[in-house]
Amino acid sequence: MKTVGYAAHDSEKPLEPYHFERRALRDEDVSIEILYCGVCHSDLHTAENDWGWTQYPVVPGHEIVGRVLEVGSGVTKYKVGDNVAVGCMVDSCLSCDQCHNGEEQFCREGMVGTYSGQDRISGELTQGGYSKHIVVREEFVLSVPEGLDLAKCAPILCAGITTYSPLRTWNVGPGSRVGVIGLGGLGHMAIKIAAAMGAHVTAISRSDKKKQQVLSYGAKDLLVSSDEDAMQAHANQFDVIINTIPVKHDFTPYIPLLDIDGTQVLVGQVGELEETNSVPLLMGRRRVAGSLIGGIAQTQEILDFCALHNILPEVEMIKMDQINDAFDKLKQGDMASRFVIDMSSLEV
Amino acid sequence: MKTVGYAAHDSEKPLEPYHFERRALRDEDVSIEILYCGVCHSDLHTAENDWGWTQYPVVPGHEIVGRVLEVGSGVTKYKVGDNVAVGCMVDSCLSCDQCHNGEEQFCREGMVGTYSGQDRISGELTQGGYSKHIVVREEFVLSVPEGLDLAKCAPILCAGITTYSPLRTWNVGPGSRVGVIGLGGLGHMAIKIAAAMGAHVTAISRSDKKKQQVLSYGAKDLLVSSDEDAMQAHANQFDVIINTIPVKHDFTPYIPLLDIDGTQVLVGQVGELEETNSVPLLMGRRRVAGSLIGGIAQTQEILDFCALHNILPEVEMIKMDQINDAFDKLKQGDMASRFVIDMSSLEV
Repeated sequence: MKTVGYAAHDSEKPLEPYHFERRALRDEDVSIEILYCGVCHSDLHTAENDWGWTQYPVVPGHEIVGRVLEVGSGVTKYKVGDNVAVGCMVDSCLSCDQCHNGEEQFCREGMVGTYSGQDRISGELTQGGYSKHIVVREEFVLSVPEGLDLAKCAPILCAGITTYSPLRTWNVGPGSRVGVIGLGGLGHMAIKIAAAMGAHVTAISRSDKKKQQVLSYGAKDLLVSSDEDAMQAHANQFDVIINTIPVKHDFTPYIPLLDIDGTQVLVGQVGELEETNSVPLLMGRRRVAGSLIGGIAQTQEILDFCALHNILPEVEMIKMDQINDAFDKLKQGDMASRFVIDMSSLEV
Repeated sequence: MKTVGYAAHDSEKPLEPYHFERRALRDEDVSIEILYCGVCHSDLHTAENDWGWTQYPVVPGHEIVGRVLEVGSGVTKYKVGDNVAVGCMVDSCLSCDQCHNGEEQFCREGMVGTYSGQDRISGELTQGGYSKHIVVREEFVLSVPEGLDLAKCAPILCAGITTYSPLRTWNVGPGSRVGVIGLGGLGHMAIKIAAAMGAHVTAISRSDKKKQQVLSYGAKDLLVSSDEDAMQAHANQFDVIINTIPVKHDFTPYIPLLDIDGTQVLVGQVGELEETNSVPLLMGRRRVAGSLIGGIAQTQEILDFCALHNILPEVEMIKMDQINDAFDKLKQGDMASRFVIDMSSLEV
C-alpha cells in the first residue's frame, strides 16, 4: 500500500515528507493506521547515523499506536478496528531458545528492528512509525488495553518496556529499594513503574530542580549526585539502580549506593563509558549490567500494567512537521517527558 | 605469648625478622602453631602500601595452616593437636544480617582482616601468618579435613575461596560453560575447582604457552585472547567468566564472550580499570560483577570440597628467609602456582 511519512535522507539533512510503499499484506500480517508515534532518542541517533549503521532513507519511530485497518487470512488475534501498538521489533526467527523464552530482542538470528532493519522475507528495509501506516506480522503487534489513553501511551512501547524489563529481571517488588538515575523519557517512566510495583523509589539527579516532579511520579526522595555527603549517606541503600543517562559518563560513583549483591542496570544506548574501578564492585559483590528493551510478551505485560495502575508517560504532543524542532530539543537534553507525534497532523 | 615472624616496617624496606606478642588466650580463642603459610599478591600490596592503608609494622599472610596448641575455656569445636587453618578474616560482628547469612566478608561493621586489621576488643593491630603462632577466635578457625596435604593446601584459604565463592554464587555446576582469565595463583585454582564442579572450562590467556598446564588442571581448551578470530568464534559461549587479572586492564573485550545473562566476575583487587562500553552489556543483558573472598562456612566448604575431589593448589615451597625473592618473582607475574612458606624454616 502507498503511504507517507517523514524520513531522513542523510545524516546532515532534516527529516522531510517521504512517499513510500508498505508491503502487500501477507497471511500473518496486520495493517495498521498509525494514530500516534513517540519520539525516542534512538530515532535521532539513527537519523543522524550516530551508530554508523543507518541505511537511508529512514523513517524513524518505534513507539507506535494505531488502529487495525486490515488483517491477513491467517491472523487470529486482531480484527479490523482494534487498538494496537508496535514497539522496537517487527520480526525475529521465533524458533531459537531466546524467542521461545519470550526474549525476541536477543533472537539468535537477530531481531528485525522496526526501522533500519531488513525484512526477513523480502530483504527490504523496514520503516518506522513517523508515517500514516505500517504492516507488521501479528506476533509483533501488541494490544492496547481498554482504558489506556491512546494519545499518551505510545512511549510505553520503548521507554516503558526498557525500564520495566530490568525491574522484572531483577525482581523488583514491594519493599525493593530502587534508584533511578536520569529523569528524561526513560527515567520518569522507571520511577512511575517501580513505584507502582511497590518499590521505595529514589530519583538520582545532578540537581534538585526536578524534585517536585519526581515526587509527583511516585518517588519518595531525590538524591543529588553532586552532593558528596548525601551520596555517602546513601551508601548500601539500593537493591537496584536503573541508569538512564544517555551520554558517555562514569557509572562508578553510583556503585557504592548499591547494597550487597545490588545491581546497577544501564539502559541507555550510550556506547563508550569512562574509566571505572573494581573496588566498589568487589566490596559488596555488586554488579553492573545492561538491559535491552524487553520481549513481546513482556511488552504486552507493561501495557496491561500501565492500564491497571493508571500509569501514563508525561507527553508533549507535536505535529509531524515539528519533528526537527523536537530533535533539537532532545539534543539539548533535560526533558522529563516524551514528545509524541499526532499523526493526524500529517496530510496524506 | 611471644612469637616471631617476618614483618615489613615501611613500604620501601624488605621484610625482616620481627619478635612480637600474640594476645593472651580469651575464652573463645584457639592458639595455633603455624606450619605453612601461602604467599598472596595481597601480602605484597600490603607490605608495600599499594592501597594506602597499611599500618606498620605488618606481618603479612592469610593462607594459614597449622596445629592447635591450646584452646580457651569456651572453645567447643577444636582441641589440642587438631589440624586447622585461618584465612583472610579473623573476626566480624557476628550479629548483622550479612554475618547471620554466612557472609562475614561483608559484615556491616567491617570484617577484621587477618593482618593490618584492628582487634575488635583490644584495638591492637592484627598480624598475619608469616610467623610461628597465631591466636584466633574459634568462629574464624577452619578445620583441615583428613586427606588434605597440609604442606600444599594453604592457598585454598584465599586463592581457593576467592574463586570458589563466585562459582557458587553464579550457580556453576555440570554443564556450565566457564571461562577463566589469567592463569596465576587464582586462575589455576578456578580451573581446578570449576572442572571438579562438572563445568566445561576454557582457560583464556594472551598466549597458548600454558596450554598443556591448563589442560592438566581440567580445562577443556585454551582461548588465546589476542587471536581476534578465535575470540569472535567464542562469542556467546560462556555462562560465567572468572577474571583474575591482577593489574589495570580493559575487561570489555571479554564481555561478548558471555551468553545472554552471562556474568564476568572480577576477583582481583585491581583498583582502576580502563574505559569500557555499554553496547556489549546491553546486547545480551550481560553483567560485570565483583566478588570478595567468601564467608567462613563457604571457606570450610571449599576445604572439604578440595579434600573430596583431590584438588590441591600448585605450590612451590620456600623458606621464610626467601620471602623477599618470592615477592620479586610475584611482581614479575606469570606464575601458574603459589609460593608456600614452610614455617619450620623460621627459627624461634
